[in-house]
Amino acid sequence: MKLVSFRADGAGRIGILRGDRVFDLGKADPGLPRCMKALLEMGAEGLRRAAIAAEGAIEAIPSHQVDLLPPVPQPEKIICVGLNYADHAAESGMQPPREPVIFNKLPTALRASGDPIVLPELSREVDYEAELVVVIGVGGRAIPRDNALAHVAGYTCGNDVSARDWQKGKPGGQWLLGKSFDSFAPTGPALVTADEVGYPGKLRIKCRLNGRLVQDSCTDQLIFPVAELIAYVSSVATLKPGDLIFTGTPPGVGMARTPPLYLRPGDLVEVEIERVGLLRNRVAGPPLASSE
Amino acid sequence: MKLVSFRADGAGRIGILRGDRVFDLGKADPGLPRCMKALLEMGAEGLRRAAIAAEGAIEAIPSHQVDLLPPVPQPEKIICVGLNYADHAAESGMQPPREPVIFNKLPTALRASGDPIVLPELSREVDYEAELVVVIGVGGRAIPRDNALAHVAGYTCGNDVSARDWQKGKPGGQWLLGKSFDSFAPTGPALVTADEVGYPGKLRIKCRLNGRLVQDSCTDQLIFPVAELIAYVSSVATLKPGDLIFTGTPPGVGMARTPPLYLRPGDLVEVEIERVGLLRNRVAGPPLASSE
Repeated sequence: MKLVSFRADGAGRIGILRGDRVFDLGKADPGLPRCMKALLEMGAEGLRRAAIAAEGAIEAIPSHQVDLLPPVPQPEKIICVGLNYADHAAESGMQPPREPVIFNKLPTALRASGDPIVLPELSREVDYEAELVVVIGVGGRAIPRDNALAHVAGYTCGNDVSARDWQKGKPGGQWLLGKSFDSFAPTGPALVTADEVGYPGKLRIKCRLNGRLVQDSCTDQLIFPVAELIAYVSSVATLKPGDLIFTGTPPGVGMARTPPLYLRPGDLVEVEIERVGLLRNRVAGPPLASSE
Repeated sequence: MKLVSFRADGAGRIGILRGDRVFDLGKADPGLPRCMKALLEMGAEGLRRAAIAAEGAIEAIPSHQVDLLPPVPQPEKIICVGLNYADHAAESGMQPPREPVIFNKLPTALRASGDPIVLPELSREVDYEAELVVVIGVGGRAIPRDNALAHVAGYTCGNDVSARDWQKGKPGGQWLLGKSFDSFAPTGPALVTADEVGYPGKLRIKCRLNGRLVQDSCTDQLIFPVAELIAYVSSVATLKPGDLIFTGTPPGVGMARTPPLYLRPGDLVEVEIERVGLLRNRVAGPPLASSE
């Protein structure tokens, strides 16, 4: 199943994407929650009911008319992994790490496919990073690696947008804010359930900037695969339904190029992952200064 | 007002703490939300209605019978500031930073006053850090420093518990996980509204370990005061009602002592802040290994 979150009449909804049509699950089964996190909290039963509702659904919306939200609009956590492709670690001038490099993004950075990535006034070196994103289904602490994939609800595409210059030389060396400007975490378009994606360790992953292929790799290059990331993070913090894990980016990011290639207003960034989908975001210039 | 979140009949509630009694706001005004974040989203009107409801409330629960939750049980963000007291920066062997050092904690780390701090198997050097915690009332982006305090709903006490050994030498140098073990973010007991606290830049802050005074300072020692922290963080990410900002810890943490002083099972840690309250947490040993 390809589950999407969308907005209709000012409220959140969940739907199933089939071809170029979206079926509103709440209309097909009014007993289902209207928020993806709540659906995932129902566990396998939630996905089973969603599948049944989707079977019977007849009222569809053409997907181009749907006001998409991020697949999980309000996850509790957005965990990220740095330097997780051997080649990307090399292009960043770093040794492959001996254990996962974990940081995170603030939830206010989330955006849907189709939403703009807004360049902040404070940065001139905003970079793209195509990533496979894991969506946790069944939560847990100290999850054994061998059983970790049973905790995955599905996958989506992500772009770990990063303000390279803003981040550089910050005292304390923490990555959080440089990765968390509003709109720096596009995800989507859909949460593709784990049964439909299958083994996550051999998926082609690409990024195109204005149609030009800038990243092209495969998740078999992950230094720490999905199951190991889940085991590692859950050895510290309880994972919850709807939590996201950005699994790291392959080589080809803008800062590692000669000359560097940063995002400019009007650019189109596309992250495409085999069996998971195509995430498309335009880049917009800085907003007018606001003061509230 | 001293607002508390608590659990009754398996569900969340909001109450007013007056002396040693808690008044259930939902009973006094059934139209009020039962979740602190939702109350804060109502803005000044929410706090005004809470005050009116509290006036009329008669049915009280003795506070020792109340099953306290963290004042904001599910904040979207828990922003933290490192090295924000000049003396603490010195004891950590670091220069006072030229701009705020921002990291964060995962929401699963939150606990209430009275809940145990659970030592993880993975660390032998778990440390305490007494901190003044800001609770955002009115959200916003690019909030000017001069108006920043108008965005504060109130304050609470926090303990930025940290696994020093676990964190040390981690590739990438990110602090997130070492600060985010489950139970590493006790806050409370109450959200004390800004009108009752007044100016946040001159509050005595102390930490006691088993009754012994281990930290004793004043928020006039903050390198970056509350208003500047709000302006800085909101220059990057939109702040939302209920977001927490841990403002940094004064000197006296365990790792800077000779010999070092780390938390042991059975310890009692108390964070006390003038006009804000007293946060008390016992320390418990590691849990039995779980596997879900």
